[in-house]
Amino acid sequence: MSTAILKIVITLTLTGSIHCGKVLVFPHDGSHWVNMNVLIQELHNRGHHVTVIRAADSWYIKEQSPYYHSITVDFSVGGDEAFFKTFVSRQLQIRRERSSLWAKFSLDMELADKFSEMHRKICEMVIHIIEDPKLINSIREAEYDLMLTDPANGGGVVLAHYLHLPLVFNVRWTVHGEAHFAIAPSPLSYVPFPLSLLTDRMTFFQRVYNMLFYLRLFFYKRIVGPHYSALCNRYFGPDADYFELFQAADIWLMRVDFVFEFPRPTMPNVVYMSCFQCKPPKALPDDLEDFVESSGEHGIVIVSLGTLVGQLPDDIADEMAAALAKLPQKVIWRYSGKKPSTLGNNTILRDWLPQNDLLGHPKTKVFVSHGGTNGIVEAIYHSTPIVGLPLVFDQHDNLSRMKYKGVAQVIDIDTLNQSVFLEAIQEVINEPSYSTNMKRLSRLLRDTPVQPLDNAMFWIEFVMRHKGAAHLRTESYKMPWYVYHSFDVIAFLLVVASGTIFLIFAVIRYVCCRACRKKREKQD
Amino acid sequence: MSTAILKIVITLTLTGSIHCGKVLVFPHDGSHWVNMNVLIQELHNRGHHVTVIRAADSWYIKEQSPYYHSITVDFSVGGDEAFFKTFVSRQLQIRRERSSLWAKFSLDMELADKFSEMHRKICEMVIHIIEDPKLINSIREAEYDLMLTDPANGGGVVLAHYLHLPLVFNVRWTVHGEAHFAIAPSPLSYVPFPLSLLTDRMTFFQRVYNMLFYLRLFFYKRIVGPHYSALCNRYFGPDADYFELFQAADIWLMRVDFVFEFPRPTMPNVVYMSCFQCKPPKALPDDLEDFVESSGEHGIVIVSLGTLVGQLPDDIADEMAAALAKLPQKVIWRYSGKKPSTLGNNTILRDWLPQNDLLGHPKTKVFVSHGGTNGIVEAIYHSTPIVGLPLVFDQHDNLSRMKYKGVAQVIDIDTLNQSVFLEAIQEVINEPSYSTNMKRLSRLLRDTPVQPLDNAMFWIEFVMRHKGAAHLRTESYKMPWYVYHSFDVIAFLLVVASGTIFLIFAVIRYVCCRACRKKREKQD
Repeated sequence: MSTAILKIVITLTLTGSIHCGKVLVFPHDGSHWVNMNVLIQELHNRGHHVTVIRAADSWYIKEQSPYYHSITVDFSVGGDEAFFKTFVSRQLQIRRERSSLWAKFSLDMELADKFSEMHRKICEMVIHIIEDPKLINSIREAEYDLMLTDPANGGGVVLAHYLHLPLVFNVRWTVHGEAHFAIAPSPLSYVPFPLSLLTDRMTFFQRVYNMLFYLRLFFYKRIVGPHYSALCNRYFGPDADYFELFQAADIWLMRVDFVFEFPRPTMPNVVYMSCFQCKPPKALPDDLEDFVESSGEHGIVIVSLGTLVGQLPDDIADEMAAALAKLPQKVIWRYSGKKPSTLGNNTILRDWLPQNDLLGHPKTKVFVSHGGTNGIVEAIYHSTPIVGLPLVFDQHDNLSRMKYKGVAQVIDIDTLNQSVFLEAIQEVINEPSYSTNMKRLSRLLRDTPVQPLDNAMFWIEFVMRHKGAAHLRTESYKMPWYVYHSFDVIAFLLVVASGTIFLIFAVIRYVCCRACRKKREKQD
Repeated sequence: MSTAILKIVITLTLTGSIHCGKVLVFPHDGSHWVNMNVLIQELHNRGHHVTVIRAADSWYIKEQSPYYHSITVDFSVGGDEAFFKTFVSRQLQIRRERSSLWAKFSLDMELADKFSEMHRKICEMVIHIIEDPKLINSIREAEYDLMLTDPANGGGVVLAHYLHLPLVFNVRWTVHGEAHFAIAPSPLSYVPFPLSLLTDRMTFFQRVYNMLFYLRLFFYKRIVGPHYSALCNRYFGPDADYFELFQAADIWLMRVDFVFEFPRPTMPNVVYMSCFQCKPPKALPDDLEDFVESSGEHGIVIVSLGTLVGQLPDDIADEMAAALAKLPQKVIWRYSGKKPSTLGNNTILRDWLPQNDLLGHPKTKVFVSHGGTNGIVEAIYHSTPIVGLPLVFDQHDNLSRMKYKGVAQVIDIDTLNQSVFLEAIQEVINEPSYSTNMKRLSRLLRDTPVQPLDNAMFWIEFVMRHKGAAHLRTESYKMPWYVYHSFDVIAFLLVVASGTIFLIFAVIRYVCCRACRKKREKQD
């Protein structure tokens, strides 16, 4: 059935007797803020009052905004951009130079230390808030309807519990790893552990690898968990467990969906809002539009490696520029580093790009991306196939999924050179399956009964209206692991069953022996 | 936040270039048809063409309808109303007379036989369809977009697979038990097995009971499973497994939600459409409206024990009528049996009731119900608390949930007498918590981002547009159980770990022994 249905959904919200909500936001700094800000703007547009808690030295979160009031806590969390930028370049260097395993391990440990330190600071910030009587009273008196937080850090969770506020998550990663693994059953036989680069169809040894990868989670928990445990114990007594407070969230607004993720078990209070930040493209600035139009039938290539890669090592930049120079397409490259010596006439460099508008431009043929979730989802939305250059964090995993779905070529930065890069771009442009598959994914992503941002707003407002969403939330997390998995019941039934069998045998033996003895007595 | 939001959602479907879908329906006869018919009518209203497959002796499914074309298969399935009506009265008799366990067991076995026979007949009907070349070719040539079926029987599943049609379920019960247990992980530690009367908070021995109850499922599977296995093997080869075909359904439209169910894991292709049949009340016929209005401030009581209980044993009917006669309320009782001798002036008997319109009437105080799912969901929708008189099937379980949620009193038919019945009705009318809790449930049930029926239609049309919904469906069901639960991986890792430990010990022992021997040699 080829269907073209135009659905115009008009939601009229009569303003007669509406009390707008008051939302307290405890965000996670860095690129996570970009997502949170989308929700905040929409909450503001719908007439809700939003208050954002930020550290004095916040990296992304501005003190002044037309969309929210801020509470600036006089405290330095030190989530500094500089560290992460340096980390990315050192990571790149290590990979290009094929440094020793020890060098890689040391850098990973440095990152783990940094994370641990950051979470320790966030916990201190929460103490700072709670133990400043003026501040905490002013927050209490404001009578917020709910806490909206990104549980990539646990500050919002603890504060919400302290203030007895319903809790809504804007989430993909948590202090306990990927969000689904923290809330839903995740059979490791077909649910690939995030960052493992596996798919939902695994061989035996891939499943072994998946299991080992999963066990690494306990290491990560040990890095950051103790800070939150100490914080919980401080305010909620020695038996309080951060994991319990965290699991008690009312709604989990998940920044992915099953166009991006592999299908897997989920929970009733998980709401998928992948693409909540997607929007139709706006017109480009005149100079960019002229440049794009000048590409003729060949179209354009967009290159953006995210905010953390301002500049690349010279050799990589040169190899990339040389490959791009050979394309018949025009290229727009987000790059603030030194101009590569091999840069072609077809390529322009920009500090910043209107990425959404470019991805949505009909002339765009391919998106060269580092593989951040937001960029990938935008590319799917606009049906633009991808050449992936993953660098750090979840980027390899995100791109390996896109490769598996037939919409991306992925290049290892370790082996990147001119010809490999050129070949990958040409393949994605010239082989129609990438574009066909991406169009299919795009149709699936866009085909939702409610627009994802509207859905997110609905559920935030639902929590306000009903003061939570307890009926959607299991309390299974309060069980010890052996109870959750019914090990105690199974053990009990095994004992009873084997006891019964033993008893039956004992009785039979007794009866037989008696019979034998009687027979013998008779014979005697 | 007390919010009153009026949402008017207008979906304009522009008819310019719409190709309407063609839906093949393989329903389940009996009360299940009532639900299916709601979907069919809406599909028809949206311009889709619906074809329903029915047996010549169908019990509920009419040959002629303004909403669908029918394919009447010249075959008798024998899903006869008479048997079930007799079964219910015998069940009632056994319970009232406190008959022996053996009598109860015999009746259960008779029901199991009847079910087995019914499923065997359905399988034969499918063979009849497939092996009638004219019939099957006409179905093939119609080029349906999807099969909509109620998997309470497996005929539609097998036929869809044979015709290579995408598959949408309208479901609560399946050949493999309750639908969630067939598709989603269901930890028995907090997911009460359906019909067990348990809740999501269980003591140790309740969990043991839950596990034992779960194991009964295998018995049920043995009753009806072999018929479907034989059918699958006949058409799809000796390795074909009915469970696999069944699990491959694209969308499961679930006739419950988490106002009714306890929260539990779910899957991405499960769509909750509880209350899809709910609608605002229409005006009552004049005579009924006059009767209702004559109740004054006391209001009315609605009594309906479902379609299977046309009449009750005289003693029960008399006890009920005597209790109802003592109420200051007026009573409308759906009852086609002999007029009870104790019937009061305040009570009228009717063969049929406009149940939805009565439940939605502002004068209605309480709904005396047998506890069928549809009636309960309608009662929640209209905020009418319940006095439950469960008789058979899932009715005890449905009502025990309502009791747990504080919106129902449940009476055991075994011990029903005038005073018990009167007391229960008075308690539900006079104790405000029942009404308050029901109003809360009603608010939750109604507060959905999309109306349940629209949501169901969206997902049926989604499957038409995309020719399935494979991206929402796991293929985990293709795994053997020990792979699904990673037992092979765990065993492998244990063997490797213990092998490693053994090796280390062996090496240490060898080294120690050598050292000892050398020392001894030196001493010698």
